[in-house]
Amino acid sequence: MSKYIELKKECYEANMELPKLDLVVYTFGNVSAVDRKEGVFAIKPSGVPYVDLRPEDIVILDFDNNVIEGNMRPSSDTKTHALMYKHWEKIGGISHTHSTYAVAWAQAQQDIPIFGTTHADHTTFDIPCAPPMADELIQGNYEHMTGQQIFDCFIDKGFSYEDVEMVLIGNHGPFTWGKSAAKAVYNSKVLEELARMAYLTLQINPNAPRLKDALIKKHYERKHGANSYYGQS
Amino acid sequence: MSKYIELKKECYEANMELPKLDLVVYTFGNVSAVDRKEGVFAIKPSGVPYVDLRPEDIVILDFDNNVIEGNMRPSSDTKTHALMYKHWEKIGGISHTHSTYAVAWAQAQQDIPIFGTTHADHTTFDIPCAPPMADELIQGNYEHMTGQQIFDCFIDKGFSYEDVEMVLIGNHGPFTWGKSAAKAVYNSKVLEELARMAYLTLQINPNAPRLKDALIKKHYERKHGANSYYGQS
Amino acid sequence: MSKYIELKKECYEANMELPKLDLVVYTFGNVSAVDRKEGVFAIKPSGVPYVDLRPEDIVILDFDNNVIEGNMRPSSDTKTHALMYKHWEKIGGISHTHSTYAVAWAQAQQDIPIFGTTHADHTTFDIPCAPPMADELIQGNYEHMTGQQIFDCFIDKGFSYEDVEMVLIGNHGPFTWGKSAAKAVYNSKVLEELARMAYLTLQINPNAPRLKDALIKKHYERKHGANSYYGQS
Amino acid sequence: MSKYIELKKECYEANMELPKLDLVVYTFGNVSAVDRKEGVFAIKPSGVPYVDLRPEDIVILDFDNNVIEGNMRPSSDTKTHALMYKHWEKIGGISHTHSTYAVAWAQAQQDIPIFGTTHADHTTFDIPCAPPMADELIQGNYEHMTGQQIFDCFIDKGFSYEDVEMVLIGNHGPFTWGKSAAKAVYNSKVLEELARMAYLTLQINPNAPRLKDALIKKHYERKHGANSYYGQS
Repeated sequence: MSKYIELKKECYEANMELPKLDLVVYTFGNVSAVDRKEGVFAIKPSGVPYVDLRPEDIVILDFDNNVIEGNMRPSSDTKTHALMYKHWEKIGGISHTHSTYAVAWAQAQQDIPIFGTTHADHTTFDIPCAPPMADELIQGNYEHMTGQQIFDCFIDKGFSYEDVEMVLIGNHGPFTWGKSAAKAVYNSKVLEELARMAYLTLQINPNAPRLKDALIKKHYERKHGANSYYGQS
Repeated sequence: MSKYIELKKECYEANMELPKLDLVVYTFGNVSAVDRKEGVFAIKPSGVPYVDLRPEDIVILDFDNNVIEGNMRPSSDTKTHALMYKHWEKIGGISHTHSTYAVAWAQAQQDIPIFGTTHADHTTFDIPCAPPMADELIQGNYEHMTGQQIFDCFIDKGFSYEDVEMVLIGNHGPFTWGKSAAKAVYNSKVLEELARMAYLTLQINPNAPRLKDALIKKHYERKHGANSYYGQS
Repeated sequence: MSKYIELKKECYEANMELPKLDLVVYTFGNVSAVDRKEGVFAIKPSGVPYVDLRPEDIVILDFDNNVIEGNMRPSSDTKTHALMYKHWEKIGGISHTHSTYAVAWAQAQQDIPIFGTTHADHTTFDIPCAPPMADELIQGNYEHMTGQQIFDCFIDKGFSYEDVEMVLIGNHGPFTWGKSAAKAVYNSKVLEELARMAYLTLQINPNAPRLKDALIKKHYERKHGANSYYGQS
Repeated sequence: MSKYIELKKECYEANMELPKLDLVVYTFGNVSAVDRKEGVFAIKPSGVPYVDLRPEDIVILDFDNNVIEGNMRPSSDTKTHALMYKHWEKIGGISHTHSTYAVAWAQAQQDIPIFGTTHADHTTFDIPCAPPMADELIQGNYEHMTGQQIFDCFIDKGFSYEDVEMVLIGNHGPFTWGKSAAKAVYNSKVLEELARMAYLTLQINPNAPRLKDALIKKHYERKHGANSYYGQS
């Protein structure tokens, strides 16, 4: 019996949340889960409809993209996941979707401004949109470079991946991550909702102001850090 | 056996309406129900997903935020509810959501204009958007001051909480209330629909006029007051 | 046993379609069905949630608003239905909703332009929006005058109720009708979809042209009249 | 027993996907499937609600519109399908809907620009919108000429039907096709989602740039051609 059974199950269940949360249609999207002790991650096989997906179809790879277990071809975005796990050592799961409103902001090549406390409950920064990749990189090791594109965006913005768990790839769509695959998927849903709220806000008031600093700080600290008081301890 | 079993059940059932009505995702939102005779109210515990919520998880508090019964931490918005129950003596329930269109208006920092009879069936006034709180208050007893923020907005507008059962907190989202927790939730759903209709109205016609006074009066009086003739008596 | 059992059932079933088709929430909306031979119509009781509605709750009235059978108060819009049945002798059912996009156009006080063949499949004209009622009429026999408001709008436009089976009451919402209650509800759903498509069309292209006459004629005649060839004969 | 049982079943099942995917209401839309060896295609009967549709209702015709088997009148759009099968010899299925966002672009008479990789995953070109038909053709053999209208649009754009499997008929709505009826329906859903994403993109940023060539090429080649690496081989 596979030693990765629990990891595959975590990955499978997180993937199956995507269609339930209306974040994907057909085979779009993919979620991975990592086992830090074993140095491997589990990811959805490429192009398999969610309705057909089974836990045993999940593919196990190391952080250099070697398949460790599994008969199916892993997600075409696998190299992006691998690079993110390799360099961001505290993340436990990654989720990628083509959810509608997040994609629309990515196609508009704009950061999602922080307009309200729903946003500040999750991060204190605008959701960054990484600018499209240089042509020579696209023609090369594209999915690997997508990971690099995310890192470059975070370096450029001065962001930590622990403070901001979501990014838009310009003209493509969102990647989100978190302590677990389930948290990564949670962030995909939250991002889609923030994208939709921000879109509507600007339609109602094109001059809507960013949330002021005192409210950003207050709401973030209600949910995060030593003095947080949201949820059950 | 708890003497608050019925109150907890009322509170639980009203909370469970929120996801069914598409007003919340995950743990967003909270509904409370009051027992005026006992001087206590029941509220959702903080950060518990609706799918896991049980009637026995509901927390009972008095109007000074002392926990009377329950092992879980109450909603992070509890102090707002407490203050509202303390000062608005005829309300029986309060509902708070982050429903999409209501939040968009709150983030746009605009009142929702009364454009039609759907709105006038429920209140004769624009839905007020309370301006964001002063920084020094945010850093203090924030959730308590959110209640004060609502009172200040109603004083400023000259509104009675019996005539207008809904408010937007600028940059945050809606609070609604009513004779019961179920009525508070009903008002959350109605508000979301009014917010959506008003948004679409302005997209179609940026110069759409407010509903004229004769129609406001007529529709409100069809449903409210001595000469109402809507519903079964 | 009531002689109106079949009529009540027709009315009940047509009403129950409204929530299934996402055209109403709570108690909004009402559908009626007529029995021309008996000179009566059946209508939803006022303020009853769809989830509680039973066939035996349906109220039977004549065209002068006298209750013929039923213990409940009929819909507050009953007089509008009665007047329409009295004067438009070939209609078999009437439906009234507060569906979102149709209400938005009504609140914008604009006719819905005919932009495509989906529209022309159902009528060759823009969907008319009746201007708001004069104040002195609102204060009088309001629901009766709403029927008159619809007639006046059709006279003003030169429309026949057989050619155009839908209208928007300015600042209120849509009424639709047809050969049967089921057809009236069908028209409510079609109208909501036409309203949504027209809204999106203008958002994409504010100068979108009306559908040209040759296409209007062709599509309408595919479905209506002596040479129609849509559906099973 | 009919020799077309399998073909009818394929056609039936593809049709039944349309309401499940929220692409149609009532009787709108129709899907066909072809049997190249027999030189016939199967299509939905005209005006039959999906809820009533049965596999045995499906009509079999040859490419000159002669009914080969079936007692019901075929879809009013049958001649369009026939002409497409006759001239585009590698397509296996055709789908026609009135899905909301695709219709809105058709009514706006605009091509859907390629804004992102979701689009490039499926085609490298803007989705073409065929200009409305000349009046004299509308009055003639209209549905036959709709097929011609599609061919003319593709000739005009220099498109191959194998590279672009979708088109908007100006003021009408989308037709899509593919190797099978199921693939044609898949393309209907993808088109609707591309139409919605492009709409939102332009609402957020009216100056959103087209996707750059290197990304168009890369994403299309990930999924298509000799060096594709998406899905299971």
